[in-house]
Amino acid sequence: MQVPRIITLLSDFGSRDAYVGIMKGVMLGICPAAHLVDLSHQVPPQAVTIGALLLRSAIRYFPIGSVHLAVVDPGVGSERNAIAVIGERAILVGPDNGLLVPAAMMIGRYSARRLTCTELFVQPVSATFHGRDVFAPVAAHLAAGVAPETLGPELPELQPLALPAPRVERSAVCGEVIYVDHFGNLITNIDVTALRAFRPHTVSVSIAETMISHLVDSYAAAAPASPLALIGSWGLLEVAVRDGNAAAALRAGIATRVTVTGE
Amino acid sequence: MQVPRIITLLSDFGSRDAYVGIMKGVMLGICPAAHLVDLSHQVPPQAVTIGALLLRSAIRYFPIGSVHLAVVDPGVGSERNAIAVIGERAILVGPDNGLLVPAAMMIGRYSARRLTCTELFVQPVSATFHGRDVFAPVAAHLAAGVAPETLGPELPELQPLALPAPRVERSAVCGEVIYVDHFGNLITNIDVTALRAFRPHTVSVSIAETMISHLVDSYAAAAPASPLALIGSWGLLEVAVRDGNAAAALRAGIATRVTVTGE
Amino acid sequence: MQVPRIITLLSDFGSRDAYVGIMKGVMLGICPAAHLVDLSHQVPPQAVTIGALLLRSAIRYFPIGSVHLAVVDPGVGSERNAIAVIGERAILVGPDNGLLVPAAMMIGRYSARRLTCTELFVQPVSATFHGRDVFAPVAAHLAAGVAPETLGPELPELQPLALPAPRVERSAVCGEVIYVDHFGNLITNIDVTALRAFRPHTVSVSIAETMISHLVDSYAAAAPASPLALIGSWGLLEVAVRDGNAAAALRAGIATRVTVTGE
Repeated sequence: MQVPRIITLLSDFGSRDAYVGIMKGVMLGICPAAHLVDLSHQVPPQAVTIGALLLRSAIRYFPIGSVHLAVVDPGVGSERNAIAVIGERAILVGPDNGLLVPAAMMIGRYSARRLTCTELFVQPVSATFHGRDVFAPVAAHLAAGVAPETLGPELPELQPLALPAPRVERSAVCGEVIYVDHFGNLITNIDVTALRAFRPHTVSVSIAETMISHLVDSYAAAAPASPLALIGSWGLLEVAVRDGNAAAALRAGIATRVTVTGE
Repeated sequence: MQVPRIITLLSDFGSRDAYVGIMKGVMLGICPAAHLVDLSHQVPPQAVTIGALLLRSAIRYFPIGSVHLAVVDPGVGSERNAIAVIGERAILVGPDNGLLVPAAMMIGRYSARRLTCTELFVQPVSATFHGRDVFAPVAAHLAAGVAPETLGPELPELQPLALPAPRVERSAVCGEVIYVDHFGNLITNIDVTALRAFRPHTVSVSIAETMISHLVDSYAAAAPASPLALIGSWGLLEVAVRDGNAAAALRAGIATRVTVTGE
Repeated sequence: MQVPRIITLLSDFGSRDAYVGIMKGVMLGICPAAHLVDLSHQVPPQAVTIGALLLRSAIRYFPIGSVHLAVVDPGVGSERNAIAVIGERAILVGPDNGLLVPAAMMIGRYSARRLTCTELFVQPVSATFHGRDVFAPVAAHLAAGVAPETLGPELPELQPLALPAPRVERSAVCGEVIYVDHFGNLITNIDVTALRAFRPHTVSVSIAETMISHLVDSYAAAAPASPLALIGSWGLLEVAVRDGNAAAALRAGIATRVTVTGE
């Protein structure tokens, strides 16, 4: 028996309406053996960057050959392209608005195609719900084995996504918070590489009006209710409060500046 | 290999408790090959009409033969009937309180049966959770191939659901908002048929204190933050705000009146 | 064909981030035939007792042989043990912080093992997300048939969970609210056994400032908006308001005292 093909779903559709369920119905009609896995549908409405970061954070933990469907699509019905990005490790399907760009960096060598083969779509295609009529059926056809060449013409370049990059200096790295998770942990754009010149025990991390004196290894290494900084499960510098909510306690959020200084 | 039978779930159970997971455990014990798909569990508590509209919106996108389990059941433990509605395209399972009525219109010719065959239930049957003890096991038995005749006696008529109908006049259609989705889009009860006498470019749509001058094809056709009206993915007249929340911006919600006027 | 092995998931991870989806990706990479079922991911952050109660409430409704993964883990990265509890009816996987204790009472004779076999983990193991790196892969290996003996050494005793017990006297039972569900129903720690000396029609239930004069069989047995008491679907004394929210109406919540008095 062939292993069921995995399709993950990420969107800003929320969980109140039946929109996500409807996309799943479309996909199971095309690929009954698909194994459907929700990543998140709580991306804030039309927050392309947050959707892109969440998608990237998940990619590496799925088996090779998985199909990742992502729909955060403020331009639905406009001239923006619908695309698939076919990589060595995975396939991405969604709008060409930057949403798929960070994930594309995780899937090995890739090529992109515009979705123009209308026979693969749900007809009639609405102008407001391409998740249902374009992206879901194409993802399911890909999971069922349709050759990527049939989707449409190659697209030489993806629309870029403007992600803030940290500024690395000799004795300091200046970055910012790019995501706040359910626990209130503050995920920054500063990765291990940017910090390799520093020693964890002698750096200090400054965020909002709080100074944290060195990096620890785990949440449990700090005193209860104390702020702490560590390299978190995203592989990025993260500021947390032990048994608490750092975003609330430190009055910080997306775009709050973070500075790491060493000796 | 037989294709796994799909069972969809819709309820007002929310996602905090384990109630939905428990129903799934019951179903997988009876029909291990079932493919379970959530439509929504965020129907407001005991809001039968909203549950009915969400269920109807999803039905047509699922493969023929799917089983749809729906539980919004303020009368649980009272004399209301538990029923299955067996149609040419799908089977519906839930309480006989109007919840299944709009969906029943979408599944071809159908007959209904009362669920009286207690051997199919989880025993002992609680008086407060028929989702777990009655509806889930019956849905799973149906997905596993139990003949509908074994469920119980035929029921000649379903309890009706009072849905507001639009009033169609020569130069105007008067309807109302029947659903507000996660994006704040206002879904009305005015469908394409009611508008066929009008030309999209010359109608105007009046809602709350806002006047919208014509129909567009997509959200992207309006200026950012502007209100717009279109035939949305539900196949119904929908009022939205580009890149915004129409319910908040227009101070409108369920039962807000909407008038379309033409020349 | 072997029946797919069920793995349930319970956590305090919420649904905004991709953390739950990531655990599923890890599990499907190890056990592609696993059938994954969410119990709840809305356990309040680090609320071990609530997680434990929800897990217990679900266990009996899943087929024999199911694997239950639970992660509410304030001590992640500290010296607390990671464990599996292997019972006659089910296997539990999670931190040894009391979370699994009530569920362990439901799975027949059991033995526990510390998870020390690092070859089963996702490498490198982070200090902040053992759900992804330790518990999910071990649960998947167990579902795929790995022998429990390979996990690590036996653990003679689980860390206890302090659950409030009701006080049973000759003419009264004094307990408290231990859970408030999505509908605002107040679930108490008073079970059927504690009430067996009383007659349902002559007891009275006192909670906050409300007195309820006898037990009923179903929500529908009370007048609309009236408070009522019954043995609910948890098998526990439950206080509800017909078509309403008891927690809000009676100003009650977790730890509110409840007294049942008889003749």
